[in-house]
Amino acid sequence: MLSEFSLIDRYFARRATAPAPRHQDEAAGPLGIGDDCALIAPPAGHQLAISTDMLVEGRHFFAYVDPYALGHKALAVNLSDLAAMGAAPHAFTLALALPRADEAWLEAFSNGLFDLAQRYDCALIGGDTTGGPLNICITVFGDVPHGAALRRDAALPGDDIYVSGTLGDARAGLGAICGEWPMPEDECWKHALERPEPRVALGQALRGIAHAALDISDSLAGDLMHILKRSNVSAIVDADAVPCSDSVRTLPDAARRQCTLAGGDDYELCFTAPSSARDALSGIAKRVGVPLTRIGTIGRSGAPAIAWCDASGAPLSLTLQGFDHFHAD
Amino acid sequence: MLSEFSLIDRYFARRATAPAPRHQDEAAGPLGIGDDCALIAPPAGHQLAISTDMLVEGRHFFAYVDPYALGHKALAVNLSDLAAMGAAPHAFTLALALPRADEAWLEAFSNGLFDLAQRYDCALIGGDTTGGPLNICITVFGDVPHGAALRRDAALPGDDIYVSGTLGDARAGLGAICGEWPMPEDECWKHALERPEPRVALGQALRGIAHAALDISDSLAGDLMHILKRSNVSAIVDADAVPCSDSVRTLPDAARRQCTLAGGDDYELCFTAPSSARDALSGIAKRVGVPLTRIGTIGRSGAPAIAWCDASGAPLSLTLQGFDHFHAD
Repeated sequence: MLSEFSLIDRYFARRATAPAPRHQDEAAGPLGIGDDCALIAPPAGHQLAISTDMLVEGRHFFAYVDPYALGHKALAVNLSDLAAMGAAPHAFTLALALPRADEAWLEAFSNGLFDLAQRYDCALIGGDTTGGPLNICITVFGDVPHGAALRRDAALPGDDIYVSGTLGDARAGLGAICGEWPMPEDECWKHALERPEPRVALGQALRGIAHAALDISDSLAGDLMHILKRSNVSAIVDADAVPCSDSVRTLPDAARRQCTLAGGDDYELCFTAPSSARDALSGIAKRVGVPLTRIGTIGRSGAPAIAWCDASGAPLSLTLQGFDHFHAD
Repeated sequence: MLSEFSLIDRYFARRATAPAPRHQDEAAGPLGIGDDCALIAPPAGHQLAISTDMLVEGRHFFAYVDPYALGHKALAVNLSDLAAMGAAPHAFTLALALPRADEAWLEAFSNGLFDLAQRYDCALIGGDTTGGPLNICITVFGDVPHGAALRRDAALPGDDIYVSGTLGDARAGLGAICGEWPMPEDECWKHALERPEPRVALGQALRGIAHAALDISDSLAGDLMHILKRSNVSAIVDADAVPCSDSVRTLPDAARRQCTLAGGDDYELCFTAPSSARDALSGIAKRVGVPLTRIGTIGRSGAPAIAWCDASGAPLSLTLQGFDHFHAD
């Protein structure tokens, strides 16, 4: 069995790249793995956007999940938080509790992690490894120009409400794995569940155009409520306009709405923007290659609530709840 | 049982203080808990020092540990990393996996955490809470002037080697709890094990004076080797000069050396400094109220190794090993 230090070295430290230097003075440059702390500084005129997510076996992933996919997803859900703020990925730390030092598992996990990290030029700058029940905690750092971050508290009455991509595939995959309905032959839902793609380019493109934004990790219904509460506004949402894949569209109405509106694990962006931005948003959608769908409007009422309607505008009475880690037992 | 969101709110978000603003533009100021990311920026001319530590039940603490002490220690070990770099604490994130939402436990844990955080003006700016085996992952952020961080790779031949405070009490406490030797009546060792005091003021005072530095978390023997390897130097250390408390001094020689040299969980600073700095260091010790003891010298050999000797200068043959989370089973 590998010792802690050789394990860190073999699978992580050796593949860690130094964070990109931002200052000319080399001696005072960034510092990565191997000291008590990493040292970084955002570029002039920028803030650091910071997010942390903890993934636990049996809660966020199954014990038998492909470790490559797990490495990907552990970083992807954090990059998704950066995307939701309009921040550009810069670096991350990884704290890992492992029941044993399984080399095949570590090889695959670290490959999934670094393949995604390298795509976004995101350097591993520090971490911690310990024995214990499998637990993955990543803290991610991104750069965003001072004052340009997309916050949750900036929705305004009259704003359009958008979501990116399609919703519900991950929840449909979970349902299929749990036997609620059959899995499509191409296992596209499983792929959506295990390999979410953070909307990094989209998030940055929305700076200066979107008002409020977040990423949909718990569910559209639950997460949109965070925007409404923080912005002190209401919303009208056309449940039938919420975009879903062709495969999710084959599900019965109730199951489809459960997946698209209350599903979770989507990692698409939900944002609001003034109606004057519609043309600009069409251009952005084309440029970053991610469909954007208008699903509703921010209302004038100060009471944070979602009024659901169908395609005809008729009110729908839906009982939906976001996923809650302490209620899911 | 509390839901995840009300739990976060009651024990953490409501007590989270906004990070100190560093810019005049209020609209672009720092952002704490409640959005996808926190937003911070170091003051002009500074870098952010970042460290992350994961604490696991049964590895880093006993299941029955006082939750107030656990909240203290979880943050203290991270502040100790900042101290080792000479950084001033600024903010932290907390990711917490909990087997159940036990309100009495959360109340005590959060009190221990925030009591220490407030002493150092260190704001909780983000986090994550989930169900799962108890796991505490804190990432801490500190400010250090550009180029002034105390690194591990800066020891020079001829440097004196120092440690702060006394070593071995925490390991003596662990031994007493495990029945290796009796616990003193005042339980001072248990206190040292459970309530380490990060050397925050000392770390900052050492900037511009010490060459290399780190905090002793695994053991003096193991951690000093990190300085030697990174600086490519050797060391001669007087094992009898290593400072210990009166109670640890009562242990038999072998047990005392096990505690002081290979003990771990000390969270004292070990650093090197040129002999020209001796007077300055005496002044610092007085000013910050922490004793500093010279225990050895950095040698000229490029082979990283510690030569141990006793008070008479006679070589000692010691077999010591730092704590390793994957070898401790």
